[in-house]
Amino acid sequence: MQSILKELSTKSPKKIVLLVMDGVGGLPREAGGKTELETARTPNLDALARSAECGVHLPIGFGITPGSAPGHLALFGYDPLEYSIGRGVVAATGVAFPMNAGDVAARLNFATLDQAGAISDRRAGRIPTEKCAQLCELLKAVSIKGVEVSVRPVKDYRAVVVFRGKGLSDLVADTDPQVMGVKPLDPAATDPKGEHTAQVAKEFVAQARKILSSQSPANGVLLRGFAELPHIPSLPELYKLSPVALAVYPDYKGVARLVGMDVVEDLADLDAQAKALKTVWDSHDFFFIHHKYTDSKGEDGDFDAKVKEIEKVDAFLPSVLAMKPDLIIVTGDHSTPAVAKAHTSHPVPFLIAGEGVRGDGTQKFGERGCAQGIWGTISGQVLIRIALAYTGKLKKYGA
Amino acid sequence: MQSILKELSTKSPKKIVLLVMDGVGGLPREAGGKTELETARTPNLDALARSAECGVHLPIGFGITPGSAPGHLALFGYDPLEYSIGRGVVAATGVAFPMNAGDVAARLNFATLDQAGAISDRRAGRIPTEKCAQLCELLKAVSIKGVEVSVRPVKDYRAVVVFRGKGLSDLVADTDPQVMGVKPLDPAATDPKGEHTAQVAKEFVAQARKILSSQSPANGVLLRGFAELPHIPSLPELYKLSPVALAVYPDYKGVARLVGMDVVEDLADLDAQAKALKTVWDSHDFFFIHHKYTDSKGEDGDFDAKVKEIEKVDAFLPSVLAMKPDLIIVTGDHSTPAVAKAHTSHPVPFLIAGEGVRGDGTQKFGERGCAQGIWGTISGQVLIRIALAYTGKLKKYGA
Repeated sequence: MQSILKELSTKSPKKIVLLVMDGVGGLPREAGGKTELETARTPNLDALARSAECGVHLPIGFGITPGSAPGHLALFGYDPLEYSIGRGVVAATGVAFPMNAGDVAARLNFATLDQAGAISDRRAGRIPTEKCAQLCELLKAVSIKGVEVSVRPVKDYRAVVVFRGKGLSDLVADTDPQVMGVKPLDPAATDPKGEHTAQVAKEFVAQARKILSSQSPANGVLLRGFAELPHIPSLPELYKLSPVALAVYPDYKGVARLVGMDVVEDLADLDAQAKALKTVWDSHDFFFIHHKYTDSKGEDGDFDAKVKEIEKVDAFLPSVLAMKPDLIIVTGDHSTPAVAKAHTSHPVPFLIAGEGVRGDGTQKFGERGCAQGIWGTISGQVLIRIALAYTGKLKKYGA
Repeated sequence: MQSILKELSTKSPKKIVLLVMDGVGGLPREAGGKTELETARTPNLDALARSAECGVHLPIGFGITPGSAPGHLALFGYDPLEYSIGRGVVAATGVAFPMNAGDVAARLNFATLDQAGAISDRRAGRIPTEKCAQLCELLKAVSIKGVEVSVRPVKDYRAVVVFRGKGLSDLVADTDPQVMGVKPLDPAATDPKGEHTAQVAKEFVAQARKILSSQSPANGVLLRGFAELPHIPSLPELYKLSPVALAVYPDYKGVARLVGMDVVEDLADLDAQAKALKTVWDSHDFFFIHHKYTDSKGEDGDFDAKVKEIEKVDAFLPSVLAMKPDLIIVTGDHSTPAVAKAHTSHPVPFLIAGEGVRGDGTQKFGERGCAQGIWGTISGQVLIRIALAYTGKLKKYGA
């Protein structure tokens, strides 16, 4: 299908906005109640829904709870089961580290180890990003024969390490045991092909331990999500798009970069995103706008705070519509119901407004309203295709 | 799936009608308005819808705008991405030219060339079919060593040329530059395998040019859609059907022939189709009835005329129902909204009435009514399977 879409794709001046409220899908607090989205006062989203085609989507498939990277890959039109992006790659691309094919990246969490070497805090007291950057600087002293090691700060206690050298592989297990009171695991290959890299990682951990020994509270490292760069055909390559991402969080910038989007840096909040949108409007035709905190508040289990985040996005919406996009999709990358305090598999509401839509009379942008919409329940991976077709970016197939 | 269906298929006396309003799917003229189908007064279709199972279908897939041939292949139960039918083959089979495996067909348009050889009219003033037939007769004088050349008139300025010989291939690009004021392109291979055929086509074009030099306005030819015969397992082979096509336009007869349908010739309009239906009723069990003008009026951008064409089909419907088919599907092969003046990717409404249907209370046969119907949004390729199953033509799978 992808090769056919590539063949059919054609450049058009039409502009598409993909506005993602991370984890927007929710659940009622009590049986018979409303979800976060249904509770929120969203006059702008509701007005848009009334002129839109609505539905709910499954980012990956029935019963599959998407992680953030696969959830977004789906919205960008890729099958996340075909293109898997490891956590290490998300972290590396998120901080704009220029990974090459064959490099292996892993998420590095600074942690506190007790005198026996057991983990007493998996997040090293959530040290601030500045401290994290200082520690990464110290780790430049690590030296491993035949391997180039790069460590970059991400956010708080989180960093990323990238190994570059011959014969590396991502077939290495996490060293984070996910519990406290035990020692970090030794890097272990999950396949003979990963042996060399496991040795490299082991050496890295040992040297890091020595370098950090006098530090407090961050005197150790945990490695997770060893990953190589996947080959993903880019959105410009596939659809002749000039896409740009307006996201606050590094991980989403990372996924956007992996599919060939330009990325606007240093955006602090929705206000900054609104301003940046104006700046990049003329030079691009696909705008991915990401709001993280709907998901964060869901993860926190804070129903009311998630409602407020949705209302913030609703208040932000007019600044997007003021740009007069030819088509706009509003949706999420997965559900994060506050009652679940986690991502879930529930279908995610979406609306498609603008050029070529039939309009289905949906009155309120919400899970159940959208499920009754014209599209019913569909795969999240096809949303971008609908948008491309409606804006004349996909030619007719066959005579 | 196809081999399973073939295994499960069984002959039954039940009769299925597939009534296709070409390009019936539409869009509102203005936001919040009605589509062509929703606007049309269709008492017969609405009555049928009220006892039917309704839905909307995607002939090929989300975001894919179907050409006519793939749109129909889908309705006949085939995956158009698996069985691609080139324009040349559609044209050749449309005029009942008996193509063999290895033959290469191309659409031939008569055109007007100026003294410098540049195209001044890509359609040669839309010469009538009779004139086209005379010119095709003249082109019998073309002689190419080792290749048998056949030229047949299709309609107006459109004809088809078929090359038969050893080592031919359809890997040759169109010679129609799609613009005026420039010379036709030389036939060029798109792959080394197409070199020989490109040479043959070049020779054909040169001789045709000479033969037509004294003609006016049709003194040149443009070739498009070089294509070989695809191998498509036929409907009789797959489902033990005895299918027949009642279509006015050659292209649809062509696609019908490709899937093994009998074809009734010389049908001028819906009245003739109604009469012919009676004639073939006893000898067949699957009846494909095609109405072209809903699409033509959509392509013209004439909303009101498209509404009228739909109303004509509505008035024709009782003559079909009078035959008491066991099951009838009414739908389109794609959408051709008048506001788009072109095929689009929008889902196409359908109804399935007759034996074994549950009935979903749809009140009016239209895009949005059907989208709320019992089937929601499904692939157009499965409609025939539902019809076959409901009429007892597919046995149980497994014990």
